[in-house]
Amino acid sequence: MAAYYSTEQYLGSLARRAALPAGFCAATASLAFSPAEKPGSFPMNLSLILLDEPTASFAARFTRNRFAGAPILIGRERLQEPRLRGVLVNNKVANVGAACGVADARALLAELGGLLGSPERELLAASTGVVGWRLPVADMRAALPGLAAGLQRRSLLPVARAIMTTDSWPKLRRARVGQGSIIGVAKGAGMIEPSLATMLVFLLTDLDIPRAALREELARCAESSFNRISVDSDQSTSDMVVALSSRRKPPVPRPEFRLALLAVCSGLAEDIVRNGEGVGHVLRVRVGGAAEPLALGLGKAVVNSPLVKTAVCGNDPNVGRILSAMGDYLGSVPAGQGVDFARLRVSLGGTVLYEGGAFRLDSKKERLLARYLASCAYDPARKGFPAHDRCVEIDVDCGGRGAGFVEVLGADLSCEYVRENADYRS
Amino acid sequence: MAAYYSTEQYLGSLARRAALPAGFCAATASLAFSPAEKPGSFPMNLSLILLDEPTASFAARFTRNRFAGAPILIGRERLQEPRLRGVLVNNKVANVGAACGVADARALLAELGGLLGSPERELLAASTGVVGWRLPVADMRAALPGLAAGLQRRSLLPVARAIMTTDSWPKLRRARVGQGSIIGVAKGAGMIEPSLATMLVFLLTDLDIPRAALREELARCAESSFNRISVDSDQSTSDMVVALSSRRKPPVPRPEFRLALLAVCSGLAEDIVRNGEGVGHVLRVRVGGAAEPLALGLGKAVVNSPLVKTAVCGNDPNVGRILSAMGDYLGSVPAGQGVDFARLRVSLGGTVLYEGGAFRLDSKKERLLARYLASCAYDPARKGFPAHDRCVEIDVDCGGRGAGFVEVLGADLSCEYVRENADYRS
Repeated sequence: MAAYYSTEQYLGSLARRAALPAGFCAATASLAFSPAEKPGSFPMNLSLILLDEPTASFAARFTRNRFAGAPILIGRERLQEPRLRGVLVNNKVANVGAACGVADARALLAELGGLLGSPERELLAASTGVVGWRLPVADMRAALPGLAAGLQRRSLLPVARAIMTTDSWPKLRRARVGQGSIIGVAKGAGMIEPSLATMLVFLLTDLDIPRAALREELARCAESSFNRISVDSDQSTSDMVVALSSRRKPPVPRPEFRLALLAVCSGLAEDIVRNGEGVGHVLRVRVGGAAEPLALGLGKAVVNSPLVKTAVCGNDPNVGRILSAMGDYLGSVPAGQGVDFARLRVSLGGTVLYEGGAFRLDSKKERLLARYLASCAYDPARKGFPAHDRCVEIDVDCGGRGAGFVEVLGADLSCEYVRENADYRS
Repeated sequence: MAAYYSTEQYLGSLARRAALPAGFCAATASLAFSPAEKPGSFPMNLSLILLDEPTASFAARFTRNRFAGAPILIGRERLQEPRLRGVLVNNKVANVGAACGVADARALLAELGGLLGSPERELLAASTGVVGWRLPVADMRAALPGLAAGLQRRSLLPVARAIMTTDSWPKLRRARVGQGSIIGVAKGAGMIEPSLATMLVFLLTDLDIPRAALREELARCAESSFNRISVDSDQSTSDMVVALSSRRKPPVPRPEFRLALLAVCSGLAEDIVRNGEGVGHVLRVRVGGAAEPLALGLGKAVVNSPLVKTAVCGNDPNVGRILSAMGDYLGSVPAGQGVDFARLRVSLGGTVLYEGGAFRLDSKKERLLARYLASCAYDPARKGFPAHDRCVEIDVDCGGRGAGFVEVLGADLSCEYVRENADYRS
């Protein structure tokens, strides 16, 4: 993302990119319900993504959280099915830990299948929202006929909007490749941690790709995108990334497909981090010169350190906290014992902070770094999206022989984050 | 802690408990310095804890952070020395990652040793404050004669005050046992995470205890107190817990010594959590029915979840987040696969939330829990310390055969935390 958009420009650009690939249709509907668990009436959106014909070429990645929601439990079983036709998504209630959660979701899928002429086992459920509440099955059931009647072939943008919870903006990315395309929408994880609030991603393509290949490519691309935007990512109760192919367009070479899928996934991952008013700065940490698992751990340790995050929030170049976070991580894993701090080099915005076993700081550099952080910050005068188009760039060279770099995206920690999460459900 | 104190009452009660054990003296001094790394002049306090005679009975626990400060590097070596006479403490500059950090600290200890008639190797250094700055050696050296001249035998309270950085209140605890006592002071870790801001603890006793026994008891008591107030505790660059015995009073049975030491350590650990204006609620998570490492991991996962912490901050009984945090942890460790959610029981303030594989929630319980959280909160109308004397009690029974309970203390996450940490150095 190279420039700020106004809200209208941003939504307009999404609308132009949102065309459904061949062989897909989509619908959304709204309802209101009164949960048994909390006084009041709450709105809920339903979304439906549907293939004209069931496909064998589908793939999904699920949270590793042991307290997984009913849609995850059902989804894991669905991976064994020969074909899938579509996904029913709801926001507001995550259907996690509720009595009869699996039965509730199955009943809704069966009802929807009846309307669409598909067996329940060819439909997937995805839910995001409050953990612990039961799905309002009766209210949702009543909304299904309207949902099925509203199917259209034009745009995935209404789905991108309907799956939002605390998201500020719909998130949609598209890549054209060969004669087809890959399009993805994401529901974005509260504000910062995909591990702690749900991330839902739906990727649709009309390019012909066999089931095994699609699953392999999704695993690889998700690892390099959604799994690199925070520690413990894909660990919420409900995180789910689904890819569906209608196989209507001729196949493209695997490397081309992979690059296009990675571009869509990386774009959505960045959108998720940038999303949310609470995020004042986006951090990009690049770690090289170390084996990949160690480099990834170091990068995540930096972007997840509350003290690094709060310092960046305040444009305070308290760079000791970056090294402290790295030392904390290195002290906690056996491989960390092999890192030699004398060979380590750490830069912030291209300015070397630490080299040759010591900090390289002076008061001139301090002022420079404070200005650099301020220049990367969210400007409240700009009301468009993205709210900021820059990253606070932190580069770490561990001085070893690791091949290439690992890149991790994170965000600062602001009062807005606390406020939003202190009162999410009300 | 059973009741609120006014500030005067609290400081008065500390003063009455602060008598130095036999064989110890202490001193404090202040100075100002202008760091090379940042414009401006900053205050620093020096503290000295000194034994009349060097003792063989000393023990210390150090951070496991791989990016350890110079005092830690020196302290690890000191453990091999036959005797120790005292500790020189400074705040404001942590002496971590600075060029010549070890040489700087050694030069100061040598200078101080000259004034006291002790070799450098019998003195320990402890530092807390900004990471990355060099110690202002010349300014500190100039203050040492005044420090040595100010030694007194009356009270440890001036040291408890002088070692503070972002602490709101001095932290001092004492236990009488046999004919002697154990007294401890702590510098308390920013506001919440001993892993991320420095924790310094100094424990003094006149009870006769052999070196090996003191080291064993300190390891045990630190594990059950300071290591249970947050994930990754004792992982900052500078965390240090030191115990010194003057051996002036007759020994007591080991179990008695252990209980007294644990009482002092647990009290200081709780003081550290309660310290800081940003802490609105203190959380106590008790986990039973599981092997100790798993129980400890679960407890820490709950108190360290930003979403649990922010919900508690807002008095929002979003109890799904507690289960989600536990599931996140269980999904990340092999032993987590053995926990059966159907046998799990989770309570908040004595109210069962989750049992028999499902949440037990209704809107009446929701209102009750919101009132309970509000009743545990900091009351800004009370200006004394502790700012709150209650804990948000979370009880987890994993339903297995684990012996006993593990208790972990944590705190909520508030805007005040973010504000203080966004601008700590200015």
